[in-house]
Amino acid sequence: MTQIQLTEVVMRDGLQIEPSNVPTETKLVLIDRLAALGVPRLEVSSFVSPKAVPTLADADEVFARIKRKAGTVYAALVMNPRGAERAIVARADEVVLVVSASEAHNLANVGRDIAESFKGFATITAMLKGTATNACGAIAMSFGCPLEGDVPESRVFSIIENYLALGIRQISLADTTGMAYPTQVGSLCERAQQLYPEAVFGLHLHDTRGLGLANAYAALNVGMRRFDACLGGLGGCPFAPGASGNICTEDFVHMLHLMGFETGIDLDGLLDLRTAMEAAVGHPLLGQVGKAGTRAQFTRCATKV
Amino acid sequence: MTQIQLTEVVMRDGLQIEPSNVPTETKLVLIDRLAALGVPRLEVSSFVSPKAVPTLADADEVFARIKRKAGTVYAALVMNPRGAERAIVARADEVVLVVSASEAHNLANVGRDIAESFKGFATITAMLKGTATNACGAIAMSFGCPLEGDVPESRVFSIIENYLALGIRQISLADTTGMAYPTQVGSLCERAQQLYPEAVFGLHLHDTRGLGLANAYAALNVGMRRFDACLGGLGGCPFAPGASGNICTEDFVHMLHLMGFETGIDLDGLLDLRTAMEAAVGHPLLGQVGKAGTRAQFTRCATKV
Repeated sequence: MTQIQLTEVVMRDGLQIEPSNVPTETKLVLIDRLAALGVPRLEVSSFVSPKAVPTLADADEVFARIKRKAGTVYAALVMNPRGAERAIVARADEVVLVVSASEAHNLANVGRDIAESFKGFATITAMLKGTATNACGAIAMSFGCPLEGDVPESRVFSIIENYLALGIRQISLADTTGMAYPTQVGSLCERAQQLYPEAVFGLHLHDTRGLGLANAYAALNVGMRRFDACLGGLGGCPFAPGASGNICTEDFVHMLHLMGFETGIDLDGLLDLRTAMEAAVGHPLLGQVGKAGTRAQFTRCATKV
Repeated sequence: MTQIQLTEVVMRDGLQIEPSNVPTETKLVLIDRLAALGVPRLEVSSFVSPKAVPTLADADEVFARIKRKAGTVYAALVMNPRGAERAIVARADEVVLVVSASEAHNLANVGRDIAESFKGFATITAMLKGTATNACGAIAMSFGCPLEGDVPESRVFSIIENYLALGIRQISLADTTGMAYPTQVGSLCERAQQLYPEAVFGLHLHDTRGLGLANAYAALNVGMRRFDACLGGLGGCPFAPGASGNICTEDFVHMLHLMGFETGIDLDGLLDLRTAMEAAVGHPLLGQVGKAGTRAQFTRCATKV
């Protein structure tokens, strides 16, 4: 069976815009349970200014206290060398760097242009040499930007080249505000893989306009095998008013298993974990399988009769 | 551009399980507005027992009073010869017959087995001869059944053959409780079209487990061109507890237009119509584009600057 590598981003992308401050103890329980359920890669937190993202201010403590499951990758987002320093000390397996394919969004998000972002990334990759922490790169707004509109594929390709030039091969194409549509996803993912066979591409999709899983399916059809997803469809983007969050992990894993893909994830356990996550954030989660139950629940029942 | 024929089912499938009774006057306004926005085919109501579906008890009056837009198809669901008689009198363009691919569901839904359903359909097609009303056939639970579990493709094919034997060529494969997944949809739709080129297949999808638009995309990829959808994602099935409704028309039209398909439907007008529909049913609708706005709203803004 074909293996899909799923990254659970709920502890980072999911929590970063939640109004409630989830206690560190609760985060540790959730992270350890996610790893135990077979999630192979987790974005644990962000090493950013506590002023910018107060809900993730405990990143250092979280990394210090999680149980490290063998084989599980514990990643964190960093924005600058100061964050990278903290990630190295925290022994994060991977740091995720983020630049936007839209100059307008990059300026709004991190206060500098794309070229300046890459100057910072060069400093960071130099710092990581000889440490246990590897760098990955994300390209926000790869499929369009609410500030700039359409983003040409050539812009995405030039950023991929910038990452590769720094030795960063693991690159995530991000649809940060749900501008992507299936044929576009298929086209960009197919071309990127053809042009840059040395890269290992992932996809970070949002469900802002209801197309998250259709986009994921289009990407699977052109051979994409690495995806971010978020328990209960949490997350969103302050630059996309009205937007809902990331694609929902449970719904996506449910789809993947039905289609014969292997994720290594215990889907029923993931659905059980929704209760703890709802308690942590203090409101109901999104996601359809959590409400309707899995398809297998019905086919299992029926075949038992 | 490739044309997609969309059937708006909100006035029938959408309203039939709504607890509130939408006044006939309101229904007339909504139906006429949907037709004016370019929806090419509408399920207007059901000619069934007012006791079974009280919210659609005014089907005869609704049909008598709608403005018939030239070229628009006004269809209704019927369950038996009594309903067909009413549809003929009401000058419905089409009646939709429904049988389930699952014996257990057919029994639960209409109180008879599949063979008995087709005996009734034979009576109905005989009645329709020489009238202005044509028959279409739907196959509920084509992709699995919460009562019976998996449904073999061969069962669906045998029902298709039964419909074709009655001279019914327009056949809708229905995922009544959201059991379908993309590779399954692609397979069944592809095989059905290959085996029965004389049939005109449509697809009726629900978003129960979040896979509605991914399934629609899979169907588009194998050449399916006729789809049901429901404004605001209303609808559902009393046999599928917790299930959400049909695929959302606005979200689907939005996806189709982005992918270069033609629907003839005014998407912005459809989004405006959500307000009237919310007022009619008395609660918020589902659908992501209604909340986040269209992709084009952002790209249009951005390119104007």
